[in-house]
Amino acid sequence: MHWSRWGDPDHETTLPSGATDLIALAFGEITPHPAVSGGTVAVPRPSFAPAVIDALAAVVGSAHLTTDDGDRMHHTRGKSTLDLLAARAGDFSDAPDVVVRPGSAEEVVGVLRVCAAHGCAVVPYGGGTSVVGGLVVDRADLSGVVSLDLRRLDALLDLDEISRTATLQAGLLGPHAEALLAERGYTLGHFPQSFEFASIGGFAATRSSGQSSSGYGRFDSMVVSLTVATAHGLWSVGAAPASAAGPDLRQLVLGSEGTFGVITDVTVMVHPVPEQAVYETWRWPSFAAGADAMRVLVQDDINPTVLRLSDETETSINLSDPSAIGLSDAGGAQMVCGYEGSADRVARMRAEVAATLECAGGELAGEDGGSAWSEGRFAAPYLRDALLDEGVLVETLETATVWSNLHHLYAEVKAAITEAASRQGTDPLVLCHISHVYRAGASLYFTVAVRETTDGAAQWVPVKRAASDAIRATGGTITHHHAVGRDHKPWLADEIGAPGVAVLRAVKRALDPEAILNPGVLIP
Amino acid sequence: MHWSRWGDPDHETTLPSGATDLIALAFGEITPHPAVSGGTVAVPRPSFAPAVIDALAAVVGSAHLTTDDGDRMHHTRGKSTLDLLAARAGDFSDAPDVVVRPGSAEEVVGVLRVCAAHGCAVVPYGGGTSVVGGLVVDRADLSGVVSLDLRRLDALLDLDEISRTATLQAGLLGPHAEALLAERGYTLGHFPQSFEFASIGGFAATRSSGQSSSGYGRFDSMVVSLTVATAHGLWSVGAAPASAAGPDLRQLVLGSEGTFGVITDVTVMVHPVPEQAVYETWRWPSFAAGADAMRVLVQDDINPTVLRLSDETETSINLSDPSAIGLSDAGGAQMVCGYEGSADRVARMRAEVAATLECAGGELAGEDGGSAWSEGRFAAPYLRDALLDEGVLVETLETATVWSNLHHLYAEVKAAITEAASRQGTDPLVLCHISHVYRAGASLYFTVAVRETTDGAAQWVPVKRAASDAIRATGGTITHHHAVGRDHKPWLADEIGAPGVAVLRAVKRALDPEAILNPGVLIP
Repeated sequence: MHWSRWGDPDHETTLPSGATDLIALAFGEITPHPAVSGGTVAVPRPSFAPAVIDALAAVVGSAHLTTDDGDRMHHTRGKSTLDLLAARAGDFSDAPDVVVRPGSAEEVVGVLRVCAAHGCAVVPYGGGTSVVGGLVVDRADLSGVVSLDLRRLDALLDLDEISRTATLQAGLLGPHAEALLAERGYTLGHFPQSFEFASIGGFAATRSSGQSSSGYGRFDSMVVSLTVATAHGLWSVGAAPASAAGPDLRQLVLGSEGTFGVITDVTVMVHPVPEQAVYETWRWPSFAAGADAMRVLVQDDINPTVLRLSDETETSINLSDPSAIGLSDAGGAQMVCGYEGSADRVARMRAEVAATLECAGGELAGEDGGSAWSEGRFAAPYLRDALLDEGVLVETLETATVWSNLHHLYAEVKAAITEAASRQGTDPLVLCHISHVYRAGASLYFTVAVRETTDGAAQWVPVKRAASDAIRATGGTITHHHAVGRDHKPWLADEIGAPGVAVLRAVKRALDPEAILNPGVLIP
Repeated sequence: MHWSRWGDPDHETTLPSGATDLIALAFGEITPHPAVSGGTVAVPRPSFAPAVIDALAAVVGSAHLTTDDGDRMHHTRGKSTLDLLAARAGDFSDAPDVVVRPGSAEEVVGVLRVCAAHGCAVVPYGGGTSVVGGLVVDRADLSGVVSLDLRRLDALLDLDEISRTATLQAGLLGPHAEALLAERGYTLGHFPQSFEFASIGGFAATRSSGQSSSGYGRFDSMVVSLTVATAHGLWSVGAAPASAAGPDLRQLVLGSEGTFGVITDVTVMVHPVPEQAVYETWRWPSFAAGADAMRVLVQDDINPTVLRLSDETETSINLSDPSAIGLSDAGGAQMVCGYEGSADRVARMRAEVAATLECAGGELAGEDGGSAWSEGRFAAPYLRDALLDEGVLVETLETATVWSNLHHLYAEVKAAITEAASRQGTDPLVLCHISHVYRAGASLYFTVAVRETTDGAAQWVPVKRAASDAIRATGGTITHHHAVGRDHKPWLADEIGAPGVAVLRAVKRALDPEAILNPGVLIP
C-alpha cells in the first residue's frame, strides 16, 4: 500500500481523457494539488520507553517489531479522502510509535497483555483500508500507540467441505484468501471495492459488504464463528449456524472495529468456485424505475449474484467503467446484473431476472457494460488519487434505508450535499448508486466531486456533516458498510440512542477494562 | 391456556388407538398419573404491600391489575414437562404476586419504574409457552413478583406495503397477528409448534424458529427493528435493513428473554399470502441419506418453504401425523417438503426440489403425508398431556450444529439419553427430526418418552442433564430455538465462555441496573 495513495504504488493512475473534459466542463479551471514528496516527510519520534519495546519484542520476536519511520508512516491512518489529504500534506502526526506483527492468536493476547500492563493504545491493523478514521486513536492518558499488524496471521486454518465453511485467519488479504480457497475449489464471494487490500479480520470488524452481496450476502451474514483475542485470553464466539442460546454475540463482535478485542480468525461459509460468471447491463428510463424493479426482484426471491443501479448522473458519466469515465450521451439509469454459478444455474437466474425486468420496463443492453464494470470494479480508488492530483476533491458516503423511504432519502441527501458545497462556492457533482438490496430496503452510495480550493479538509467536513445530518433526519443508517470509525461517531449516538451507547460502553468495560483497544474509535 | 395442560382447555386430548398399542409395546404396563383437580390447588398469598399495588394500579388502571388466585395460577411457569408436572401436582409455589396488563409501551415503562422503585421482580408474559423455565424467577432480595402480561399490546401498528414490513405489538398471539396481516393480504410466515398460543414479543425474545423456516427464515432474521421498554424509557433499536453502524444491537435484544428490557413492538418482514400451498412427503432409505439430500438442497440455494426429516424411529411411529401415531410398518426416513407462493413459484420450486431429491435417491410419496403433517402441525403438545395422563413422561430437546458434525452429535445425544433413562430402569423411546436447515448445518429435535415411575421430575432431570452434556461435548448449541430460560443456563456458560457471560452481565447492568427483569433467567 502506498503511503499517501490507494493501493499498489506501481499502479499507474492517469485520468482517462474523457474525465479531463468532464472536469473542465463541471468545474472550470482547476489547480493541481500535488502531494509532498515522501522523502520530505517527518514522522514523530516514537514515544515508548525501552522497557515496553523489550516486552513487546519478547512476545513477537524482535524481527517482528519495528519503530522504523517508513513502517510507521505506512501504518498511519486509513484511506479516507481526509486521510489522504493529511498524508499528501506530509502530516504524519498520527503515526503509531511501534508496529508489531504477532505470529499467532496467542501472541496477539501476549501483545495485548503487555499493552494493558503499560497503558499503551492498540490499533488492530489489517489492510489499512478504513475510510472512516478507524485507525486513528485518542492517545489521551495512554503511554503510546501500538499498531498491531495482523499480516502474519495469513493461514487457511480449516476447510470443512461438508459444512462448506472455511476458517480464515484475520490477516489474510482478500486476494490471498481467495487464492487459498481456490486451490481447494472454493470462493468466499466477498468482493468489496477494497478487496485487493482489505483483510478478513477487517471485513468482520467493520461489517463489510461486497459487490456480490445479492448472491453471497454481507460479510456479517457469512460468519459461523470467530476467535477474539483480548488481554484476558482468547474467546470463541459462535457454536452453530443458528442458535437461540441468548443474544447472538457474534453480531456484537462483528462491527466492533477492534474496540472489544482483536479478531484473530473467522469461520465463514464458502461456495464452490462458480463454473460461469456473466455480467450484463440493463437500461432504465429513470433511477426510480430501476430501483422499483430491484425491489420486485428481491421481494420475489430472485437474487442475481450482482445487482447495482446507477442514478442518471452516474450513468451519464459512465462511472461503472472507470477506464471510460467522461460525459457520455447515455440517458436513463444503468443497472449491472451479474450471475455466477453452474451453467444451469446462471441460465436459470438470467431467465428469471430477464422475465421480471422486461415486465418492469427495463431494456437489456448486453454484456459489454457488464464486462467493463467487472474489469474496473476495484479501480475507483486509484481514480480518486489521480483526481486529487488534479485538484478535484472526491469522496464517497453511503447509507441504507427501507424501500418506502429510499427516494426521499436520496433526494434529501443529494440536496444537502449540493447546498453545503455550493455555499462554499464550489458546485459539486453528486453521483449515486444502489449496490446492496434487501427484502425491506437497499443501500445508497454517493460519490461527491468538487473543485478543491485551498484546504480540502475544510471543504469536505461541512459537506459530510450536512450529508450525515440529512441521512439521520430522514431515517437512514449512518453507514451501510463503511463502519463508524471516528467520522460517524456523532451520528451513531443518535442512531442507537442513549441505551445503545450505554450498552457499547458496558461491553467495552467488560472486555477491555484497561481501555487500550482503539480508544476513540466507534464508541461515542 | 389451561392451567396445567397445553392450549385450549376445550380441546379434547385422547390418544389415538395406535398410540395405546405402541405404549403397551414400548413400555409394558403403565400407571395413570392424573392431575390434581383445579379446585384443590392452593396458590400462595400475594406478598406485596398495598402501596405497590396502588402504584401499579395508578399506571395501568385498577381494571388491568389482578391478584386473583386463578389469574395468578394461569401466569405460573410455562409449559415444559417439568412445569406441567408441577402444575399437575398442584404446586403453584412459583405463582406471581400480581398480574398487570399495561395498555401501551409507555405504561410498560411506568410499570417498570414502579417495580424498580419498589424492588419488585418483573416477568414479561406473552403467551406463557416457555419450555425452558423462562417464566420462573429468583425472588432473592426482591419484594415480590409482577407478571407483566402484554396481551393488551395487540395492534398492527403499521404496514409498509412498499418495504413489505409490518410493525406488530408484542402481545399479539400468532393467530391474531396472522389474521390482522391476512386482512391486508400478508403473512409473517412464522409457524412454530407453539404458534397458536405464543406471542410476537416471545418470538423475538427467544429467537423462535418456525416450521416454515426454510422459506421464511428464523424469526431473528425477519426483524428490521424493535422497541424495548426499560425502567429508564423506550429504546428504538434498528434503523435500516442492514447496517455497519457498529455491532448489531437488534441481535442483542433478540434472545434476551426479557432480562434486558421488555420488547413492546417488532417491525418484521412480511410476505403476500401465498396463492398456493402444497406439502408432500419423500421417503429415504435412511435418516443419513435424507439429511445428506437436505444439505445438497440448501447448499445449492434450493429452499422449499418447509423442509423436515424424521429419523427411522420417528418415521416408524408416524409422529409427523399426530392423529395416526402408532407403530407402523414404514421403513426408512420420511421427509416433508412444503411449497408456498404463487402457482408458478410453487411449480418451479417443486420441480427443482424433485430433480435434486430424485438424483439423491429419494422417492416421492405424494401429498397425503404432507397434508396430514400440515393438519396436525400444532397438535403434538396436546398429545403430551394425554400421555402424561396415561403415565408416559414425554419431553423434547433440541440443538443445532454444522453438517459435518450432525450424525456424530445425533448418535452421541441419542446414546446419552438412552443410557441415562435406562440407568433408571426405564428404557426410553427416542425420536428425532431435522426441521431447520442452513448452508452450514441443521437443527436436531429429539422427543423422549419413558414410562413414568413415581417422580417424573426426578426421572427427567438426569436425562436432560446427560443430553445437554452430550450436546456441548460434541460441539452443538445448547438450544436452537427453545431459548435458555433457567433450564439451559449451566450449558450456556460453557457455550459462550467467561467473556460471553461477562458481556451479558455488563449489558444487564447497563439496561436494568435495578436487576428487576426476569432475575435468574438466561444470565449465568
